[in-house]
Formats: sequence, structure tokens, C-alpha cells
Amino acid sequence: MTRARLRDLGAAVGSLPPGPANAITDVSGVWVGHATVIRDTPRVARTGVTMVVPRENEVWEDYCFAGWFGFNGNGEMTGLPWLEESGMLGSPVALTNTHQVGLVRDALVRYSVEQGVVEGFILPVVAETWDGWLSDIDAFPLSEHDALAALAAAGSGPVPEGNVGGGTGMICHEFKGGIGTASRRCPAAGETWTVGVLVQANYGDRVDLRLDGLPLGRLAGYDRVPSPWPGGREEPGSIVAVVATDAPLLPVQCARLARRATVGLARAGGVGHNSSGDLFLAFATGNHLPAHRPRRGLEMLDHEQLNPLFAATAEAVEEAILNALCAAETMTGFRGRTAHALPPEAVSEAWARRPG
Amino acid sequence: MTRARLRDLGAAVGSLPPGPANAITDVSGVWVGHATVIRDTPRVARTGVTMVVPRENEVWEDYCFAGWFGFNGNGEMTGLPWLEESGMLGSPVALTNTHQVGLVRDALVRYSVEQGVVEGFILPVVAETWDGWLSDIDAFPLSEHDALAALAAAGSGPVPEGNVGGGTGMICHEFKGGIGTASRRCPAAGETWTVGVLVQANYGDRVDLRLDGLPLGRLAGYDRVPSPWPGGREEPGSIVAVVATDAPLLPVQCARLARRATVGLARAGGVGHNSSGDLFLAFATGNHLPAHRPRRGLEMLDHEQLNPLFAATAEAVEEAILNALCAAETMTGFRGRTAHALPPEAVSEAWARRPG
Amino acid sequence: MTRARLRDLGAAVGSLPPGPANAITDVSGVWVGHATVIRDTPRVARTGVTMVVPRENEVWEDYCFAGWFGFNGNGEMTGLPWLEESGMLGSPVALTNTHQVGLVRDALVRYSVEQGVVEGFILPVVAETWDGWLSDIDAFPLSEHDALAALAAAGSGPVPEGNVGGGTGMICHEFKGGIGTASRRCPAAGETWTVGVLVQANYGDRVDLRLDGLPLGRLAGYDRVPSPWPGGREEPGSIVAVVATDAPLLPVQCARLARRATVGLARAGGVGHNSSGDLFLAFATGNHLPAHRPRRGLEMLDHEQLNPLFAATAEAVEEAILNALCAAETMTGFRGRTAHALPPEAVSEAWARRPG
Amino acid sequence: MTRARLRDLGAAVGSLPPGPANAITDVSGVWVGHATVIRDTPRVARTGVTMVVPRENEVWEDYCFAGWFGFNGNGEMTGLPWLEESGMLGSPVALTNTHQVGLVRDALVRYSVEQGVVEGFILPVVAETWDGWLSDIDAFPLSEHDALAALAAAGSGPVPEGNVGGGTGMICHEFKGGIGTASRRCPAAGETWTVGVLVQANYGDRVDLRLDGLPLGRLAGYDRVPSPWPGGREEPGSIVAVVATDAPLLPVQCARLARRATVGLARAGGVGHNSSGDLFLAFATGNHLPAHRPRRGLEMLDHEQLNPLFAATAEAVEEAILNALCAAETMTGFRGRTAHALPPEAVSEAWARRPG
Repeated sequence: MTRARLRDLGAAVGSLPPGPANAITDVSGVWVGHATVIRDTPRVARTGVTMVVPRENEVWEDYCFAGWFGFNGNGEMTGLPWLEESGMLGSPVALTNTHQVGLVRDALVRYSVEQGVVEGFILPVVAETWDGWLSDIDAFPLSEHDALAALAAAGSGPVPEGNVGGGTGMICHEFKGGIGTASRRCPAAGETWTVGVLVQANYGDRVDLRLDGLPLGRLAGYDRVPSPWPGGREEPGSIVAVVATDAPLLPVQCARLARRATVGLARAGGVGHNSSGDLFLAFATGNHLPAHRPRRGLEMLDHEQLNPLFAATAEAVEEAILNALCAAETMTGFRGRTAHALPPEAVSEAWARRPG
Repeated sequence: MTRARLRDLGAAVGSLPPGPANAITDVSGVWVGHATVIRDTPRVARTGVTMVVPRENEVWEDYCFAGWFGFNGNGEMTGLPWLEESGMLGSPVALTNTHQVGLVRDALVRYSVEQGVVEGFILPVVAETWDGWLSDIDAFPLSEHDALAALAAAGSGPVPEGNVGGGTGMICHEFKGGIGTASRRCPAAGETWTVGVLVQANYGDRVDLRLDGLPLGRLAGYDRVPSPWPGGREEPGSIVAVVATDAPLLPVQCARLARRATVGLARAGGVGHNSSGDLFLAFATGNHLPAHRPRRGLEMLDHEQLNPLFAATAEAVEEAILNALCAAETMTGFRGRTAHALPPEAVSEAWARRPG
Repeated sequence: MTRARLRDLGAAVGSLPPGPANAITDVSGVWVGHATVIRDTPRVARTGVTMVVPRENEVWEDYCFAGWFGFNGNGEMTGLPWLEESGMLGSPVALTNTHQVGLVRDALVRYSVEQGVVEGFILPVVAETWDGWLSDIDAFPLSEHDALAALAAAGSGPVPEGNVGGGTGMICHEFKGGIGTASRRCPAAGETWTVGVLVQANYGDRVDLRLDGLPLGRLAGYDRVPSPWPGGREEPGSIVAVVATDAPLLPVQCARLARRATVGLARAGGVGHNSSGDLFLAFATGNHLPAHRPRRGLEMLDHEQLNPLFAATAEAVEEAILNALCAAETMTGFRGRTAHALPPEAVSEAWARRPG
Repeated sequence: MTRARLRDLGAAVGSLPPGPANAITDVSGVWVGHATVIRDTPRVARTGVTMVVPRENEVWEDYCFAGWFGFNGNGEMTGLPWLEESGMLGSPVALTNTHQVGLVRDALVRYSVEQGVVEGFILPVVAETWDGWLSDIDAFPLSEHDALAALAAAGSGPVPEGNVGGGTGMICHEFKGGIGTASRRCPAAGETWTVGVLVQANYGDRVDLRLDGLPLGRLAGYDRVPSPWPGGREEPGSIVAVVATDAPLLPVQCARLARRATVGLARAGGVGHNSSGDLFLAFATGNHLPAHRPRRGLEMLDHEQLNPLFAATAEAVEEAILNALCAAETMTGFRGRTAHALPPEAVSEAWARRPG
């Protein structure tokens, strides 16, 4: 599904170096899996599920510290009360379409029951964006099988982007959007840490899209590639960002990283429209938190060490959004509607006009 | 399913008068519906769904201002990001078991699609408590049909309590628990308002149970009625409280009411155990908020008028919990386990020893 | 200033054992100091400052993890943005009157400058309740000297209660209130921990006052001791609670303890009136957090171990309030007004009527 | 003190039109006043107080709905618990230096007492940034007189920017910073509303500074104008933003605006460094809230109408920061240190290289 990545087109954002895959999977042990559902009959489906799976799927019994931020809450992310109360994440993070958050949530519960990986109960984290313009969302196209398929497909290494998984039918800055990922490596407290990001990008006006500050959306123009909604009517949009790091951060520090996703979003041109569910979750694998240990030894970076991780988060979110746009191919779906890809030459042309 | 209510046993808590049904349905337009699932084959089910339905089910298109409070977040309540962002509730509030929050959530989405009651999408509010001691929760006993049946059953007037709906398999203070409700009428700003509460009560140690300050749990004793968990092992428990009022409150004021549910819970003996999801939602019907009106006229009570509503909330939560305990009958379920009803004579005996 | 403590009168609340001083100072290294200002000329003053000083005043350079909860926010507590962002407390916690929070706050800044105990700047935590009924608060009676005197007076061991320090002019449940303290020892994770509480109690209606559930306020009666406001007019009131523990808790866990102060308040009869600033802060000394260490080793208790600490917090807050009431002596102040002490025999008589 | 404004240099950001003064005072009834303290003996002072005064100083008795957001909480803003609890602002908003927040806070209390403008007590909102590099902050240079002088100086119309009031000694993106303001007019619900912003800008690295996406900081270079801290050592920095609008917004909606200040900050190059107190407050004058009215009629814009106000907030914050930089003159202060002004030709040169 992937056409190109931002750096394939000669462009880049930020100043920190990416990890080897420039993906959230550069954080050791973080896996990503997609289940992509594209079909035209009996009803048009352009949807799917994406799973971000910490600790090689051992997160059910070896939690991660985590925190979140809702920049604009017109969306759903299940599991937040316990994530906030405990500062811990105890399940993969799933991304899907708005109507079927519940299905994916219960599927993760059922998986935990069948695999015997938890005692009692879990409160899984599942988030969504709305793909009802390209996908007949009212047909409820996903089954529990799709959720489990995304989990089963999860692995390390390069991550398919664009029209895959939960991002299959998404639209971003009036171009075809979807899944994007990026990573950064940064120094803190004498070591090098990795921050990885995965977004499901489905928000924004074209006129606001920026590439390293360049007005990419305006330069790309409506004449070159028409908008999916020429009448100017706003469609529901959202962006979910998952931030992962291998640094030993406490829950309050994960929440600080989650808030910095806002910076990356703003740089790319996001404003947080009313209809947008802009929910950001950050987790840190640097401390192991095996279940049911009465007392645990931990580490933490001092708050004073976090500026590089803040910068890394902002850069990785910005680039992940652009990666989603570069990767996603033109798609025609529900009711014959088409969302056009961001033209790669628009990126190259804009980049050539950089002032500095 | 209802044996008795607290006041049938000659006892009461608080000083404000209850409404005619002493139920959340005393708030005009608030309906309650239950779907109760009790079966022994193929797998044991003691579970269900309860719906609290504002505005005679017109809430989908005429929102209510709302706010929430998580006293202890070891539970799930979907829909919170938008409820917090907008201060509005746009769906019924559903209560069910922990494993099937997603099913009920998506069922409400499907209902909204099929009824055509919303444009775009909704983010329904569904909460849960864990009934896996009496019910084979890992069998995922509910279907979407049950969720819709609870909604279809919703109506005004007296509310069945105890072993009904989402409360069917619940255990509270080591007695059989479940659904309870109560209401209060109180003056503010020259008028009389109603505050109604419905709880799904599934928390607490027996030793902590109080009736108007009387140590009811200690007086009821373990010899008279054995605990479901004699070994003292704590089982997961929670309490969800829904607070409704007809007063014209703003979202920040609804949140203030939600926080006062904590007072009622503490009076009844709750401490907020680690494993408890103690999530409280309050909504106010005093302002009509029809969808898609660019500008709306509203009213608000001054904050200085709210003390009676705070008292009413605390009293109604306290009594709703006791009503759940008085109403719920002894139940035997999964693996032959039995949760015993609170003996009515324990209530009468304790009440007779009131000091004042 | 102290007449008696609750246990001197033969009564007690809760089931966990107190520490040796039954005071917040039972948490090792926690000091308390008071500066009490009582004078009649030139203008009537019944006010002061109380300092809770963690780590024997080394907290400036060896922080404590901390969290807070605002049950009702009609009050001031400075320093909250950084306390919430960092999860750390880096100064003593000061309690004083409403009008002079700023003075005490800046006095702590000046102290840090003069002592050279911090680099750059600090954001001290200072909270308040309103003593303007007994004290001519509009005279701004305190000076920076009083703030520093409270700090200089800080020490370990038994803590003066009642009409001392920040609590000098306070009124609680329509009796003379003020400073109260209590502690509990509780087991968790194989060790015994201490939870200590100090309150500045200045809230509540007499009719709501409870002693271990007994309606102490109603039993004490208005005939025996008249209320300061016979016309029933509500005066501004508040309660600030500081919770300390030696357990190795993370910031999210401190916030959990802070929320449990609500339970103790509710048991004693608090409802969180509109005009009340009910702000609770909890800190944990179990981890040392020396400033400017890039990386630190820590410990944490598992969330599953916290129930005893939750119970301890609730019990200690409840008893600290009652200790404030038992200790405070009748006081006459501004405009000749008198707030009467809770009669000790009212406590004994109520206690004698315990039902079980 | 003002050299120029961004638009005087031929540049601009955003697409919405500014109000007549392009200042927060374009919101009807909003006044601004500064007290600027610059002296070299006995100790060097480069500091002051700025007051943003809603409703022509009637805000004490006719409140404004308000909300806030802490993007990074390493700073102080007093009054937050009640602002959050009530959703109301009942005092001017003061900005000053870090060490003397308390002084200014108590000065506002004293003013309210002396003017008799409130009953009981107030909880004023005072925020700060740290000017200790140019000003001998440890000398505590301000007196209550300065706070009251800022209030007395408050008025409508154009607002002095740069080295004035609370912004006198501030440094932003390694150039001289300080006070900046801007406004936008935008349509919603069939009318035109004004959003005005005032910032006290004291944050950021030069390399991150952007002008409409252009890398202004990199283009301006360190050779042209040296940084105040050549060794690269980070100094404490912060930005406080006050957002005002005449739209009839509810408290939850004010908080939504406050969160959008983050977008403007990110566009200008802010990341939210660890040592930064990035606290944003928004208030709305569109509803009158006279004190002590039991019941009030209100209006609200629908959430769906807010996108233009969100855009206006982001644009106005971005431009207010740039206005602060354009206005502030080179300043030499404490220990002979110099913070250099942003060269106006750097702005013009960068603007000339705009790509589209």
C-alpha cells in the first residue's frame, strides 16, 4: 500500500536522527500489526484494525508506564480511567473505525481470556477515527476476526503505512491519509533513547498542511488534486497518535510526551477542529512492571533530561503524519467517492523552495 | 426481583424528602430499562444491561449537560473524552458487565444508525462492573439484542432494583448487590428541584457497611449470613453511579454533583478499593440542547444555590446503595457459588439501635 | 491550646493502629511548625501559619513524590501546576488565612534565596482557609516573619492542635475548629507503613458532624452550645488536608491517597459546600529524589498493595478532624464574636451510645 | 518601548483579519495596564506587572466564564482551583515575575477589600515568568504599589508591547522578549466575534523560532545577534497567554480555546521545555454573570461553531509572540548582561523568501 515515505522524496522534518526503520518499531519490543479490509460487496468496506503491541505482546503481564492527552476529545479511546488512575498500560493499543471500537475492545478481552494472559479482567485501550466517507461504516464491516488478525500479524521492523489497518479509509488535510509512523533517537542522561510514533491521520484542511513550515497544502493546490469535499463542508476527522519510548519514564512523564504530540500536529497544520478526536497516548518500556509484584525497583530520568525526548516526540509526530500522506494511495470507495493521494511532486517542489 | 426497599424496612437516610417513586425516574423524562439474563445452560449467566435514558429517549437529538468524576478509575466508562470536551451527553447511559462494554457500546451506535437519530457518529456512554463470581463472564453471555431490549424496556415510574439488568450478578459489601435507585427533592433559587440516582453496586467489605452511620455490616455479622469469599480474598468490585437532575446546571456544575456521589458512597462504607471502578456521571435536563443550533439560550443556577443539590446527591447515592442491598435476593450462580441477601431483620435491628 | 484529643475522651475512629504520636510527624522526617498570632490591638488577629515540612527541611533539595485532589475548589493552593506536571513536591507545605497566601508563598521563595537551598526558582505550595469571622482578616495581620517563624518552629513529635498556626481562627461544624492531626500504621507488601494527616478544619454544618457514624452534631445540640451563626447564614469554610506517608509511592499513587481524604471528610460529616475549598495534598517520602540527578533508582508498591494505605488515609483524616474539634478551645475574637468549643462530654455521651 | 509590530515590518501570520488595535483590547471592555520597573540602584530591576482587566474593571462583580490549560506546568498561576471548579473568573489577570506572584496576588485581595468590590474573599489569578537573567529577581524589586499602578493604568486601545509591565525583563527564543498582543475577527453563528490574546513571552530556543513557517531563528543567525547564553545553557523560560473573546462561550468552551494557544505557540517554535511554565487562560465576556443572582439567563454558541474561534486563537497567539519579539528593544541589565532585540531586517529578509 505504501507509495513512498517523506524521506524517499528528499524531504524531512526536524533535526534529530531517525531510528533504523524510522518507525515506532524502532523502540525495542514494540510490534505493529494491521488487518486491512477492502471489499466492494455486499457493502463497500475501506477499513481495518491496527495494533501497536508493546513488549512483543508480553504487555498483558509486564505493563508499561503510560500517560495520555486529549487535545480535542471528539473521539473515543477506551481504557482511559484505569490508564490515568494507575499510570499503566496492560494491553496492546488498537486503532480502528469509530463505529466498531466496542467490537475491537471486547475482542481483546476475549483474547486475554482465551490466552489466559490475565487474571480477572482487563480494560483494553482502543481508539478510532471516522472513515465513513470512503467506507460504508454503517455496515459495521469488521468482525472480531479482523481484530485478532491485526494482533496476529504484529511484528517488528518496517511498518506498512497509508491505506492499511485502521487507517485504510482515512483522509488527512483533504488528501488520502491513513497510518504513518516515524522515530527519533535522542540523547538524555548520558544514553541514547528512541522515541517512536504511529498515527492514524484523518483530520485537517488542505490549506493548513505544512512541510517543515512550508505551506505544502496551498502549494499542492486544489487544481492539481481536487478535494474530497469541494463544497467546503467539513467532514468528521480525527488523529490518534501513539508514542512509544524505551526511556525509563514515569506515568507523569509519559503524559508530558503525549502533550508534545500537539506540537507535531500543529507543525503539520492541525488546529484541533471541533469534530476531531485528537487523542494521544504515550508509553515507556524502560521499566518492567510484571503483574502482581508487591514491590518493584524502577528507574526514572530526571525531568530536566526530557527536552530531547520532547523534541523527538514533536518531530516524530510531524513526520509520521507526512509519512501517512506520502504513503497513502488514491482510493475510491463508498458511493464512488475518491480521495486523492498527495502528489509526490508537490512534496519535491515545495521542498525545493525551502528558504534556509 | 425486588424484596424490599430501605424505607419499607422502616429505615431511611438523609433529611431531604424523596420524590414520588424515590427513583431516578422522578427526574422528569428520565427512563430506566433493564434486560436481565439469567440462565444455567449452556453456561451460567447472571448478567444484563441497564439503560438510563434521558428525555424520554430524545437525548440523541436534544443533549443534556453532563459531567463526571472518577473516584477510582479501575473500570471502564466509554464516551468520556467527548463528554468532558463538550460537557454534553448525547446518548442513553448503559450499565453492563465488564467484558461486554464494547458490545453494548456498538449496539447503541447501531441503534442510532438504524433509527436515524444522529448524523455522522455518536460516542455512547457505557459503564460496567464485574459479575464474574456469579456469572460465567468469560462466556460473553450478552448479545446486542439484550442491549436493545434494555433500551426498548425503558420507561418512567418505579424502577426494579436488585438482581436486574446490569446489576443482576453483582455483590456489594459481601451481600448480594445490584441495581439501586433513590431520589431527593430540594429547594434552590426559589424552586424545588429533583435529584435522582441510580447505582450498579458491586463493591466493598462487609465490615465497612453503614446505615445512617450505624455499623450495619458488623451488626449483620458473618455468622448470620456467610460472605461469598470467606477466605478474605478481595474480588474485583466497583460502583457506577448515574446522577440526574432537572435543575438547569452547566457542565462544570454537573461535575460538581458527580463528585458528591463520593460522599454518599463513603457514608455507605465505600473506600474506593484499588480494584474498584468508581465512576460517577451526572447530567442535567434543565436546559434543552437541540443538536445543530448555532446559538442557544440557556439558564443556570448560581453556584451559591447548589448546596441543597449537593446534599441531595449524597443522600440519594447513599440510599440507592442501601436500596440495592435491600432489594437484591440471594443468588446462586457460576460454579454453585452463592451470594446471600442482606437480611431485612439486620436492617431493622440496626435501625432500632439508633442513638439519636 | 490543646484541651484534649479524641482518644483522651475515650473515643476513636477506624480500626488501624495510630503511630506513637498519632500525628503526621509519625512519618519519619516530617516536621510541623506553627506561628500563632493572637492579639486585640490595633486590630483583632486570630490567625497564623502552619508548616508541614518533609524530610527534616531537606525537601528543597530532596523532593518528595506528590499528588493532589480538589474535592471542591473554592480555595487556593499555590504550586499546583508544577506539582501536577512533575509529580514532585520541593518545598514545605504552608497553611494560612485566605488573604495572605501570597505573603507566605513569597516568604518561602525568599527563604530559599537566602538559604541558597535551590537554584533558579521554586514554586511553593501554600493553602488557606478563611478565618475572617474571628479574625479581622482585612487587616492582613501576618508578616513574612510569621511565615518564617512557623518554619523555624518546625519539629518532630507531638503536634499542637486546635487554635494554633493556620488553624487559630477557624470554625468547623459550627464549633471552634483549627488544626488537627492523626496517623495510622498499616501493612503492605510485607512491611508496615505510616500514613499521617494534618488538617486545617474550617468547614461544615453542625447537624452533619459524625463520630464513627454517630450523629455527634445533633447530639451535641444547639442548646448546649450555640452556633456562631444562629441565623443559619453560611459562612465561607474550607478544609485543607495534608497526607504524608513513608511508603514508596509514585505520583499517581499519591493522588490516589489524596482522593481518599474525601472519605474521611465525608465520614466526619463534610459534603463539600459550594463556598468550601477542600483541597488535599499527599506526599510520599519512600523514594529519595535528590535534585539534578540525571537518572534515579526508585521503588514502588504495587497498586494492589494500596488498600491498607487507602483505609489509613480515610481513618486518619476522619480522626484529624475530630482531634481539631476536641483540641480547640472556645475563642472570642473580631467584633466580640465567639466560637464555642465542642463540649468534651458531648463526645463521651455520644460514644457511650455506640450500637455495636 | 515598542519598536515595531510584525505588520509594521510587512509580515503577518494567519488568514483572519485583526481587530482595529490588533490587540486583546479589541475585545470590548478588556483593558490592559502595565507598571514597568527599570532601575539600576540599589539593585538592578528589569521587571513589572501587567494587568488584563475584563469588563472595564467590573469583573469583580460581573464574572466572566473562563477555562485554562497547562501545556507545561513549570510555572505558577494562582486562582486555578476555583477557576476550574466554577468556570468563572472574578478578578483581573495579573502577570509578573516568578518570585513575586504572592505580592501581586495579595495586592489584588487588598484592592478588593479597600474598594469594597467583593463580599467575603476573592481568589485572584496571577501568573509569572522568570526574569532573573536581566533583573536581580532575588532583590524582590516590586511593591504592592506597582501592582496597583498596573491596575490603575489599565485602559482600552493600543497596548504597549515588548519591555513593559510583566514582560520587561523577559527573553524569548534567545532574543529580547516580553509582552505581545494581537487579535482576530471571525465569523460564527451569523455574527462576527473578536478573539484577543496577550502573551508574556519568555521561552524558547532561537533555532526553533518560526515566522509563518519560515525558520526565522536560523535565518536571523547567531553571528548577527549573539544569544544571551552562548554556552548553550538553558535558562528557565515560560510563556503565559491570556485569551479573551466577546463570544458567548461556556467554561468548557473557554478551556477549548485555551488549549488552542498551544497551536500558536508551536507554530512560533515552542516545544514546551521542561523548565517552562506554559499556562494559558481564556475568558469570554459574551455572557454577563453578575454576582449573587440565584438564576441567570445565558447564551452559548454551539460547539460546531467554534472552528473559526479556534483558528483565531492560534493565529493571535502566534502573532502576539512575534509582536513581542518585534517590539522589544535590546536591554542590558543584571550583571551587565544583554539580551538583543530581534533585528527587524531579519524579519523582512525572511518574509521576502516566502515560498508561496
